[in-house]
Amino acid sequence: MESAILVLNAGSSSLKFSLFDAGAPGVLSAVAVGQVEGLGTAPRLKAKGPDGQVILDERRSTTEIGNHAQALQEIAALLGSRFVGTELVGVGHRVVHGGPEYSAPLLITPQAMQELAAFVPLAPLHQPHNLAAIRAVEQARPGLPQVACFDTAFHRTQNEVAQLYGLPYEFYERGIRRYGFHGLSYEYIAATLPEVAPEIAGGRVVVAHLGSGASMCAMHNGRSVGSSMGFTALDGLMMGTRPGNLDPGIVLYLLQQEGMSAKEIEDLLYKRSGLLGLSGIGNDMRVLQESDSPRARLAIDHFVYRISRELGGLAAVLGGLDALVFTAGIGENSALIRRLVCQQAQWLGIDLDPLANEQSVARISSVGSRVSAWVVPTNEELMIARHTRQLLGL
Amino acid sequence: MESAILVLNAGSSSLKFSLFDAGAPGVLSAVAVGQVEGLGTAPRLKAKGPDGQVILDERRSTTEIGNHAQALQEIAALLGSRFVGTELVGVGHRVVHGGPEYSAPLLITPQAMQELAAFVPLAPLHQPHNLAAIRAVEQARPGLPQVACFDTAFHRTQNEVAQLYGLPYEFYERGIRRYGFHGLSYEYIAATLPEVAPEIAGGRVVVAHLGSGASMCAMHNGRSVGSSMGFTALDGLMMGTRPGNLDPGIVLYLLQQEGMSAKEIEDLLYKRSGLLGLSGIGNDMRVLQESDSPRARLAIDHFVYRISRELGGLAAVLGGLDALVFTAGIGENSALIRRLVCQQAQWLGIDLDPLANEQSVARISSVGSRVSAWVVPTNEELMIARHTRQLLGL
Repeated sequence: MESAILVLNAGSSSLKFSLFDAGAPGVLSAVAVGQVEGLGTAPRLKAKGPDGQVILDERRSTTEIGNHAQALQEIAALLGSRFVGTELVGVGHRVVHGGPEYSAPLLITPQAMQELAAFVPLAPLHQPHNLAAIRAVEQARPGLPQVACFDTAFHRTQNEVAQLYGLPYEFYERGIRRYGFHGLSYEYIAATLPEVAPEIAGGRVVVAHLGSGASMCAMHNGRSVGSSMGFTALDGLMMGTRPGNLDPGIVLYLLQQEGMSAKEIEDLLYKRSGLLGLSGIGNDMRVLQESDSPRARLAIDHFVYRISRELGGLAAVLGGLDALVFTAGIGENSALIRRLVCQQAQWLGIDLDPLANEQSVARISSVGSRVSAWVVPTNEELMIARHTRQLLGL
Repeated sequence: MESAILVLNAGSSSLKFSLFDAGAPGVLSAVAVGQVEGLGTAPRLKAKGPDGQVILDERRSTTEIGNHAQALQEIAALLGSRFVGTELVGVGHRVVHGGPEYSAPLLITPQAMQELAAFVPLAPLHQPHNLAAIRAVEQARPGLPQVACFDTAFHRTQNEVAQLYGLPYEFYERGIRRYGFHGLSYEYIAATLPEVAPEIAGGRVVVAHLGSGASMCAMHNGRSVGSSMGFTALDGLMMGTRPGNLDPGIVLYLLQQEGMSAKEIEDLLYKRSGLLGLSGIGNDMRVLQESDSPRARLAIDHFVYRISRELGGLAAVLGGLDALVFTAGIGENSALIRRLVCQQAQWLGIDLDPLANEQSVARISSVGSRVSAWVVPTNEELMIARHTRQLLGL
């Protein structure tokens, strides 16, 4: 391998990476993936090769890996020792927020970093970590080209009416609008559909990205026209630990009647709600599916209910539905959730093929189904690597 | 007229009343309607007779009418002088909140008043005024039977999954759930459909109550199975001055990043948002429809967009749609809004009859329309009068 592109996805307590072989023309392939997790508490460095074999799995002390910069050093040391002679030609970052304007990836410059820092108030829990990873790379390898790929960019094709909230218009003008997230996942699906499902790629498609974060995107001819997520990653579908759709009056109630602070409510909504909060058991759908607890079943039922209701709303945005696509952890792996969602969507014309659904093959609806249903695995890291290669002219 | 039932609807700065002839068996008819408005600022007493002729329209000083008790005295004096010899046999009140349990009207007792006072934190802007009106009647006419009719009661047929939010389950147990409102309007429509539209009364119907407050209710066989409104009257559709659906992260943003207080946000969301906030012109749909301003058009477009999206979501809750019913101020009077909504709902099978729509006749969809559309005027006061008569055994 002569040259490589590194893809980084920095969270509050983790730094995920993927290394892609950038030497060969055509298809990009990952040669290593891994992460430093437990940053600040119990750091652990894990890495796997292209066929899933474990390269490394080591616990470290917080003095060894205490921040994103040190995590990056560890990753660089690991990859350097493993891929001797390979030149790193660029780094692509997942950056949660590109603000109201950026509808495409951005080459990092000092000017660009200033602009991205201005979006920190829009995503205070995520954007600072994304930017910390960019700064860590710049410090370790000054001049190495870096590219920011935004989770919001794909949705910037939505019209103004879809991006509005019912607030005074000046709130919209100063950036309080529906951004939508998981954009790199949806962009990957949009780019993949012409290959795996050409008959629907140009149509009216709702993509359900169901992971620990979850949202849905209404696409027409591969372009986003609506999303279940809005200004933050809280809105829309119920998620692992987040509530999804919530009456804003509940936040006022918790502040005014129950005396909670904004910080406490933030903690409640980001970390203690969703599947975890309703079930009282956990946020892992696999665990809930195995559980006999009525509350686990209630959490699953409400998860499906919210998906069904958003699906109807997004079908309305599209003026009808041609296909439903499942992706991400739950969407790709939970035959139960897909079955329950498709049963609730019979009224839209979806007729599930139970066997195909159990086998998670691409098309999971019956041959005669008026609206088709699909499982399409997503790959946000590959999307970032593609953008990075393209923007750097590699 | 031998006996009468008084219906009261107390708001923060108004007391609306309707007097019904309770003497004749069968159909109840209103003999006078009116209100004291501008309580605390510029009190004004208005009253009309059964055929709409003005009985009275007088401005008063705040020392004459400073609170609900004084407003009630004025109304009682007016009605007493006009209907000499008529016995008032009961008073029915619109009470916004009946809590998680009350699914039917309630005869007022001291015990009942304690329970209703416990719901004040759930509706702090409305419930206290409703209770003030009940206390004022009790003070003026001790022992006169009074009945509380709840805006939440009709929705208590919804199942648990539909009433849940994605919060820790204990929040649901202590009453933070989707209540839904405008229940007296929906109940009236449900009671009226078997007469005016028997072919849909037993089916899957979405009723759009579009007034200065606005919500939608999914009914199956006349029972509520879902609503666009939730815990408070803020959620769901965009309204005259309220935003409807709003990412809870926006409230956190306004608190944490913009330094607004909870009270300021409450004021923003209840009084300065919605059609008023988006248009910058006003909250009156008639004014916006006449305006050439692009922002007025944007506000109308977003109003319709939110209705369309909620309609899709509620059709999903019903597993399909048989009919859409428009009611309340905008729903009954704005042919433009009905036309725009029905155009967006063509994918559901609604085919508008333009002429019928302009004339606001009952059925406004074409003869061949797979899903029918209707205009059915609502009458919450009559619903309250019926409940009061029934509960008092009159």
